[in-house]
Amino acid sequence: MGTEVSVLGLGAMGSALAGAFLAAGHRTTVWNRTPAKAEPPAARGAERAGSAAEALAASPLAVVCVSTYDAVLDVLEPAAAALAGRTVVNLTSGPPGDGRQTAEWAARHGVAGYLDGVVMSTPAGIGRPDALLLHAGPVSVFEAHRPVLAALGDPVHVGEDHGLPSVYDTALLGLMWGALTGWLHSTALMRADPGGGGVTATAFTEVAGRWMKTVGAFMDEAARQVDSGRTPGGDFPLDLHLMTMDILVHASELRGIDAGFPELVRELVRKAVDDGHGGDGYARLIGYLRKR
Amino acid sequence: MGTEVSVLGLGAMGSALAGAFLAAGHRTTVWNRTPAKAEPPAARGAERAGSAAEALAASPLAVVCVSTYDAVLDVLEPAAAALAGRTVVNLTSGPPGDGRQTAEWAARHGVAGYLDGVVMSTPAGIGRPDALLLHAGPVSVFEAHRPVLAALGDPVHVGEDHGLPSVYDTALLGLMWGALTGWLHSTALMRADPGGGGVTATAFTEVAGRWMKTVGAFMDEAARQVDSGRTPGGDFPLDLHLMTMDILVHASELRGIDAGFPELVRELVRKAVDDGHGGDGYARLIGYLRKR
Ligand SMILES: NC(=O)c1ccc[n+]([C@@H]2O[C@H](COP(=O)([O-])OP(=O)(O)OC[C@H]3O[C@@H](n4cnc5c(N)ncnc54)[C@H](OP(=O)(O)O)[C@@H]3O)[C@@H](O)[C@H]2O)c1
Ligand SMILES: NC(=O)c1ccc[n+]([C@@H]2O[C@H](COP(=O)([O-])OP(=O)(O)OC[C@H]3O[C@@H](n4cnc5c(N)ncnc54)[C@H](OP(=O)(O)O)[C@@H]3O)[C@@H](O)[C@H]2O)c1
Repeated sequence: MGTEVSVLGLGAMGSALAGAFLAAGHRTTVWNRTPAKAEPPAARGAERAGSAAEALAASPLAVVCVSTYDAVLDVLEPAAAALAGRTVVNLTSGPPGDGRQTAEWAARHGVAGYLDGVVMSTPAGIGRPDALLLHAGPVSVFEAHRPVLAALGDPVHVGEDHGLPSVYDTALLGLMWGALTGWLHSTALMRADPGGGGVTATAFTEVAGRWMKTVGAFMDEAARQVDSGRTPGGDFPLDLHLMTMDILVHASELRGIDAGFPELVRELVRKAVDDGHGGDGYARLIGYLRKR
Repeated sequence: MGTEVSVLGLGAMGSALAGAFLAAGHRTTVWNRTPAKAEPPAARGAERAGSAAEALAASPLAVVCVSTYDAVLDVLEPAAAALAGRTVVNLTSGPPGDGRQTAEWAARHGVAGYLDGVVMSTPAGIGRPDALLLHAGPVSVFEAHRPVLAALGDPVHVGEDHGLPSVYDTALLGLMWGALTGWLHSTALMRADPGGGGVTATAFTEVAGRWMKTVGAFMDEAARQVDSGRTPGGDFPLDLHLMTMDILVHASELRGIDAGFPELVRELVRKAVDDGHGGDGYARLIGYLRKR
């Protein structure tokens, strides 16, 4: 009798994926080019496959996670005969075009379904309910395997186009850097303020975490505005943003904190206000990011 | 028989505060300099006070929310005789020094307790469980009135120092601008990408909201690192940030999206990597924000 899921590739991430499947009680087969890496999951109850083809044959679902798409082909090409009727979920990161090409390649080899995905988590986060994993391909394939994939975290289907997870990957990292840079600046400011001097980064960040729920609601509203093309400022117009940004820039300078980041944001807002959009909301700024 | 809470100042925010107290079933007295603004809450069951002194006398707890601290004194000074034994929660925004001075002034007039606070929400958000309200002053005063204040949202005590809410206010807005700017950039990128073309801002932002939980966990870990002074990069070191930032900058340029924001962040990371901190985590960057 076979197993429920096979994991091909047992690097830092593949090992975490296999570990999460095992922790959730799924019968799991593992394979890695360098066999020694299969020992820890085997010690936790995984079956060991002697080849990639054997791993594909063992389960209806195969999760592939190796360093690059070239490595994916190195793994799957010699095992192509075993692909027929199998579902492959490729969680290797790479550029959008590679996801699309690999999907076509897999279709030519008779896979029952191919999902391309990205793991938006570190290996240590895998298995936690919030760990985000993005998948693209036929929604029916995603839904059929969602119960098993859910062992890894929060699996999300982002569309049919196999290039989408990669596009999301880059965009979500950009969002992360915005949030982390804002956090960094604010934490530096709190620590530099004589009044905030007694506040630890941990205490500030606990409050920041609560605040991010409100920020999330602002994003949701701004997204609706971007989609509708109407960006009224309501009770938080760009005029008010600009006024309070001046306070942040001033406080940063006063406390000896580099104001490069708030100044960049303020310039963007100021442009829109100068153009007469001071009564609009933050979503209005999206037009200022397009260069052509 | 008196009411449970009085609201002094019925501008956009004060009216929302009074409305939330009434919605939660608290017996509420209201007062505003311009009497007409008391009509809507009165129609919803609030008592109307003829003066600020009358409003203070009506309830053990008075919430003051007017435009500035000068206005706070304009309201409270003529009513100073009614302050004795009352608790005042001042939710007017302003600089840290004003909060501290008003606390001293209130103490001289025999208040039972004075909390200085800021409302980290728009009026429309007041009364929702996530609406964040920050308070400083004696923790016992905060705890005694927390059940009533909870009608407004999520009341948090940030410390004894009455200047703290203002410091938090500026810092949390800075965090918000970081997150919103990252979101804006990423949304522009998704919409500009031929692969992401079919993805609405709303669909992207739904996924972004899930992702922010992981980003929040990164912040929590970075905060612990800032406090401990040890910033190991673990499985997401600055080297890896820099590599993936290059992808974001490149994708932005390719799609005609202004790369000013990711370039600024990348410069910060590059400095730390050049200094030999490529194996450190994001928290290591905080040292680069201090100018002196
Ligand atoms: N680590 C993270 O934090 C993280 C986060 C999100 C996404 N990801 C993505 O997850 C994927 C895997 O990352 P990782 O951290 O697990 O990398 P890793 O620890 O470096 O492991 C790389 C894996 O790929 C295998 N491999 C490489 N070239 C191969 C080839 N030509 N043929 C067969 N196998 C080959 C390796 O096999 P050997 O053991 O035989 O060398 C190993 O199993 C990457 O696309 C990465 O971008 C990683
Ligand atoms: N609106 C927001 O989105 C928001 C968000 C967070 C924090 N806040 C803060 O909340 C506070 C109130 O804002 P708001 O939006 O409610 O402002 P608002 O709509 O402009 O209302 C101002 C209030 O202050 C009163 N006032 C002004 N000067 C006065 C004086 N000298 N004597 C007596 N009363 C005076 C006004 O009374 P009259 O009606 O008689 O003029 C009115 O009740 C501000 O500190 C603001 O920064 C607002």
